[in-house]
Amino acid sequence: MHVEIISTGNEVLHGEVTDTNSAWLASRLIETGYRPIKQITVGDDFNHLTDLFVDCSRSSDVVLVTGGLGPTQDDLTAAAAAQASGTELEVYREWVHILEERYRQRKMPLSNLKQARLPRGSEILPNPKGTACGFSLQIGSARFFFMPGVPYEMKHMFDEEVLPRMLQSFVPTEQKMTKRVFTFGLSESKVGELVSAHKNDGCSIGFRASFPLIEVKLYGTKQKIDPVLNAIRCTLKGYIFCEDVGDAASVIQESMVKRKWTLVLAESCTGGLLADQLVSVPGSSQYFMGSFVTYSNLLKTRLLHVSERVLESNGAVSLRVAACMASEARNKASADIALSVSGIAGPGGGTDEKPVGTVAFALAARERTYSQVLQFPAWGRSRIRKGSAMICLDMLRRYIEEIQIFPDYDYAKRIVAKVQTVQDAPGAS
Amino acid sequence: MHVEIISTGNEVLHGEVTDTNSAWLASRLIETGYRPIKQITVGDDFNHLTDLFVDCSRSSDVVLVTGGLGPTQDDLTAAAAAQASGTELEVYREWVHILEERYRQRKMPLSNLKQARLPRGSEILPNPKGTACGFSLQIGSARFFFMPGVPYEMKHMFDEEVLPRMLQSFVPTEQKMTKRVFTFGLSESKVGELVSAHKNDGCSIGFRASFPLIEVKLYGTKQKIDPVLNAIRCTLKGYIFCEDVGDAASVIQESMVKRKWTLVLAESCTGGLLADQLVSVPGSSQYFMGSFVTYSNLLKTRLLHVSERVLESNGAVSLRVAACMASEARNKASADIALSVSGIAGPGGGTDEKPVGTVAFALAARERTYSQVLQFPAWGRSRIRKGSAMICLDMLRRYIEEIQIFPDYDYAKRIVAKVQTVQDAPGAS
Repeated sequence: MHVEIISTGNEVLHGEVTDTNSAWLASRLIETGYRPIKQITVGDDFNHLTDLFVDCSRSSDVVLVTGGLGPTQDDLTAAAAAQASGTELEVYREWVHILEERYRQRKMPLSNLKQARLPRGSEILPNPKGTACGFSLQIGSARFFFMPGVPYEMKHMFDEEVLPRMLQSFVPTEQKMTKRVFTFGLSESKVGELVSAHKNDGCSIGFRASFPLIEVKLYGTKQKIDPVLNAIRCTLKGYIFCEDVGDAASVIQESMVKRKWTLVLAESCTGGLLADQLVSVPGSSQYFMGSFVTYSNLLKTRLLHVSERVLESNGAVSLRVAACMASEARNKASADIALSVSGIAGPGGGTDEKPVGTVAFALAARERTYSQVLQFPAWGRSRIRKGSAMICLDMLRRYIEEIQIFPDYDYAKRIVAKVQTVQDAPGAS
Repeated sequence: MHVEIISTGNEVLHGEVTDTNSAWLASRLIETGYRPIKQITVGDDFNHLTDLFVDCSRSSDVVLVTGGLGPTQDDLTAAAAAQASGTELEVYREWVHILEERYRQRKMPLSNLKQARLPRGSEILPNPKGTACGFSLQIGSARFFFMPGVPYEMKHMFDEEVLPRMLQSFVPTEQKMTKRVFTFGLSESKVGELVSAHKNDGCSIGFRASFPLIEVKLYGTKQKIDPVLNAIRCTLKGYIFCEDVGDAASVIQESMVKRKWTLVLAESCTGGLLADQLVSVPGSSQYFMGSFVTYSNLLKTRLLHVSERVLESNGAVSLRVAACMASEARNKASADIALSVSGIAGPGGGTDEKPVGTVAFALAARERTYSQVLQFPAWGRSRIRKGSAMICLDMLRRYIEEIQIFPDYDYAKRIVAKVQTVQDAPGAS
């Protein structure tokens, strides 16, 4: 079966917005056992749209189209679909009634009425989340499904309306499965080399750098995947952060909640990024207490009692300051574990001794404080901040799993590292 | 001139990774005056890749290809390009030498050598950021430029190697310009209606919902754009957050730095998201001091002196608590302005009285504290958190611009709002 995915809109074609719809659709198709052949993006141009629909009506069985159903003048999908199928637009009273019902208590913008004009012969796909209804239409040999471009409207419509209709008409062919392993700390070519050393007959292997993780994807029957997977687990051991879902924050949450441990953060260069990653997972309040985002030195002193003298003699990016930040945050919050990070994300602020990319980390637990200073390459502000947040999570994972807390990282050079027991805990002043 | 953009890779076709390269390339082309006609994504399939290259070699002048140049077995772009141009792969010694030079001090993975095998007749496009060199090759009527899929390697190569070569051979045709206006607080159909009321001959208008902002894009000659732009500015007035670049954090930074004001945050449901947005802009340390991410009530009490009694009687999501959080954060940091936010992002935690989506906000300045409680629709955790962060920024922008701090929002219903002068400032206990 031949499935294609089309996304429309000048904003996508011209790169002003990144199309996440096609990726999401492709991924849902694969999960269900369908395999998309191609994804195409075209602009809001009546002729280009019509030509593309006609092309696809000859070569495809199913075509999924997103975008161009809005109320404004640059939304041309319905008109082009009508043209491609040799018919005309007509007002679908059914949808007008639904809109009128929804707007009973306020004035309906007239432009919304345009969204009830569909190619004759269409079947309406209801949209409970927005004012643009979707529709399905047979053109040539292909069944077209037209959905809105707003991601959460589209996703709901695909799952509730489109997929059930596809499953009725087309049996998914693939019986294979996908298994994913996410690593942190090794380069893609190193992971590739280590993994390729194993025999993998009948199991296809893919690699993907999804900064800061590297994903290894195995695809095949369970029987073929299992031995390869076991071999990979042995080879990459300490560097495997998680499997199946590449969401480091969810993995951390699960481990922490299981142990009934609480976590607090003290962030400087990551500036709330790490807290945000943790809080974006529902249920994070079960273990996550908060973060001292002490971006200025003044707040480091006032909130975390890092003395001005220590800041001056060691610099804000130092083992000592990171350790102070973590242990004071841990005390203030009465948390089981505290993580801290302080670094130079750039573009300014670097010196010869501590260039941009120098970042200090600490993990404070009941009995010990672990601290290290790493030097990242010239990655730029965004990657240095994201890489730093990930190092924090990796320290925590390694602490939880009771494995080496200071491993070799392909990406970052370790300048110095230290473990302190509570007896010689870092003095804050 | 006909330009197409191709991105390759199963991970993109199957939706495991969102392709940001095509959008970036399209946007750079547009800025330079070229107009891409189509974007296509295909998987790591030798035949599909070859067929597509042959198709494009007939219909296009320039084809930009990203991805599939890596060292692993699923990287097939060079081989397919050779096949499509009827030639073979050969080792380019020039690139081998460069790689050997780079790896002088450590062992080079053998797999990297594969990346020096290019179709005969190719011109090397150097890649100082990675081990995959790009290459350029004439196939049929089209000049193909092959670039790596890693975004920061690709971007550098496009700007330094590809674009100069395109400019030598093809004169950009468009002399038009684009103007963007970003609004916050009105729905897309409302913005569309207000804008469409103006005459706009010769100036094309596009709309884009880029949550939480709505973008209005004008495209045409300066002469045609200017009158439309002026009319739009009058109509949408208080709802225009920024123009040209839709980055709210940069706009705030510019305004704050200009006034030499400092800012501190107290975040609960946004959990560091707002701080992260501000810190992601280089130079944020000029005005941003930090954030009290008091996600747990314990930290609200310990760090911001919100008493347990107040938390119990008012609830953490209340005018009173938001106002306390902001004014205490402002005092603690000696900042000019503090913003606070505390809400129920869901999925759990809602009650009949305060359902999921109820969020309290405050802005504390020297002379006054402004607080409000809003009710968002059933948007889900991620949008409620993003929407909340944006409301904070909108309060700050409105405070700076000295306009109505509590406007009507299409998205969110206001439950209650309050302005307190310092005399009757919120007691913390």
